[in-house]
Amino acid sequence: METFEALANGKTVDDDMVQKWTVARRPEGNVRPRDFDWVTASIPELGAGQVLLKTHYLSLAPVMRSYMSGQSFAGETKLAVGDVIHGRGVAQIVKSRNPRWKEGQVVQGQLGWQTYKVSDMTEQEKFRAMPANDLPASLGLGALGMTGLSAWAGYFNVGVPAAGETVLVSGAMGGVGSLVIQFAANVLESRVIGIAGGAEKCRLAQALGCAEMIDYKNDAVADALATAAPNGIDLYFDNVGGDILDAALNHLAAQSRIVLCGSISEYTRAAPYRLPNYNRLRRTDSQMRGFFVYNHLADWDRAMSEIADWVKAGLVKPVEQITEGFENLPGALAGLYSGQNVGKQLCSVRGEPASWH
Amino acid sequence: METFEALANGKTVDDDMVQKWTVARRPEGNVRPRDFDWVTASIPELGAGQVLLKTHYLSLAPVMRSYMSGQSFAGETKLAVGDVIHGRGVAQIVKSRNPRWKEGQVVQGQLGWQTYKVSDMTEQEKFRAMPANDLPASLGLGALGMTGLSAWAGYFNVGVPAAGETVLVSGAMGGVGSLVIQFAANVLESRVIGIAGGAEKCRLAQALGCAEMIDYKNDAVADALATAAPNGIDLYFDNVGGDILDAALNHLAAQSRIVLCGSISEYTRAAPYRLPNYNRLRRTDSQMRGFFVYNHLADWDRAMSEIADWVKAGLVKPVEQITEGFENLPGALAGLYSGQNVGKQLCSVRGEPASWH
Repeated sequence: METFEALANGKTVDDDMVQKWTVARRPEGNVRPRDFDWVTASIPELGAGQVLLKTHYLSLAPVMRSYMSGQSFAGETKLAVGDVIHGRGVAQIVKSRNPRWKEGQVVQGQLGWQTYKVSDMTEQEKFRAMPANDLPASLGLGALGMTGLSAWAGYFNVGVPAAGETVLVSGAMGGVGSLVIQFAANVLESRVIGIAGGAEKCRLAQALGCAEMIDYKNDAVADALATAAPNGIDLYFDNVGGDILDAALNHLAAQSRIVLCGSISEYTRAAPYRLPNYNRLRRTDSQMRGFFVYNHLADWDRAMSEIADWVKAGLVKPVEQITEGFENLPGALAGLYSGQNVGKQLCSVRGEPASWH
Repeated sequence: METFEALANGKTVDDDMVQKWTVARRPEGNVRPRDFDWVTASIPELGAGQVLLKTHYLSLAPVMRSYMSGQSFAGETKLAVGDVIHGRGVAQIVKSRNPRWKEGQVVQGQLGWQTYKVSDMTEQEKFRAMPANDLPASLGLGALGMTGLSAWAGYFNVGVPAAGETVLVSGAMGGVGSLVIQFAANVLESRVIGIAGGAEKCRLAQALGCAEMIDYKNDAVADALATAAPNGIDLYFDNVGGDILDAALNHLAAQSRIVLCGSISEYTRAAPYRLPNYNRLRRTDSQMRGFFVYNHLADWDRAMSEIADWVKAGLVKPVEQITEGFENLPGALAGLYSGQNVGKQLCSVRGEPASWH
């Protein structure tokens, strides 16, 4: 079984059973077909307090390879070989023996790579009911989920932006970045400079509101920054780390802020990136702020309500790429590391839930 | 003239003339006697709006070698060979043709290395009247001057401390550090871990309130930090940069703050220090905050009043080392780079001003 097409071939979701993708082997380098096992099991009976969740969408994120390698970041259980792979998802409650959760509700949280989950709805699984509005349930993994909260809390709570600033966003067409550029450009009407790889992503980001784009694969980033922001950057929302963070530090305006959201350029480095110019923070009276999205859960309702309003008003256009079919999850994960993805990546297992709105 | 003793020998302050130390040569490495010229001139007549300042104390700071090399950091004029060396000082106004400034007032600001100064009292010179209280005027260069404001604004405004935290302070017996350890330990009653070089400085810092001391010349800093702060550091006040900043980043508690005040360990490096682990900020939800003391001048009155109260109450003991005699300024500057100094370094030109309180 040497290709992901061959791995998916002949596999289908049977609604009378649970299908699962489990860890067959620890990945070496990028994930390969042999690292995944397809397991079919019967649906367990519900115990008291439990609910049966029927999976509609599953998230795809680079961190999943790390989970498969046995790493843990935010309190997740470390996976052993044979375990169901971690992943957030959107599901509908189809049976409930828990008075706090009702049949028909749509929730998002830690489902794992499986077509059903019997859950105790513990704190650790971080399930949240999705508000019934006119927006697609798939947004529960993007603009109206943890991705949206990361963008909202990182930009508003941590970045403490002011309207009309010069804002730099790297990973501008990533899941978080594609929201931040729109919050900054269309909600606060700031001047947004985006950084992305390739002409196509740059074109898309400009259509979403970026005033200027830097194509890090083809432009000299430091020169392009000096041209695009002659008075310096007031706020840098960093999704990538590494050399681009370095260049941003060298183009800070006075009293600016850097929000450290991600450092995808550093994930595959053997040795840590060594930042040569953190002292620019001192010389420019600026701050570099890490943040952990789970410390901003108290703002969940406000953030989701604001983002939903902006989506309905057309100020924010969620960008998602959906892979169809649970059987295609492993191949979609392997494709994440190519740098060709745009917006939030997810897999549709059963499409939109019925009888929800 | 090969020793500083020989340079000083036979020179005295004549109150009827102005004595000045000027740049004779650009320093190479540490300053040497040949880099300084002693100049005597007549006292100029006052023009309209001018005042005559009589020097009582002059500050000593490592930055002065950089000034002599022609560098400028906070808008100071770049020095040419033959210019009076920059330096803050405490002076008494002995004549005034400026209605905003009165004879007898004691001020501190940019005097330069001279025994009198005729000044227009421009914004750039940053003169501030010292409040008449029972405290020595020499404190105008330390606890009750820009050093005090740096410590106060850096710790309270930028560090945003809470009582009872674990606070790490490097350069714990320096001018700023020796105030910060006392604000933290004695005003907010936090647990303070100090870092300093040598047993004597460590002993002094413990007497001022530090719960634990790390002697970076004799201890393994990372191991000592792990032992002294098993639950991590809530606030790191960084006066030194480099490897010690690196070690502090590896021992941060969640939601901690690093205040970047100085980086004396990096001043003499040819290449910039490369920080390998800024990503700890992201993983611990923490912030690294540079600051520029002149952006906190709006808090001057409050800071000076609070520090004066703490000094009178015995909560804060200013630490100063005073070199006697204007003729000994060059030798005292050369001695700064040995790392043996404790507290604020200054030179007494005429001791305390008379008829002031």
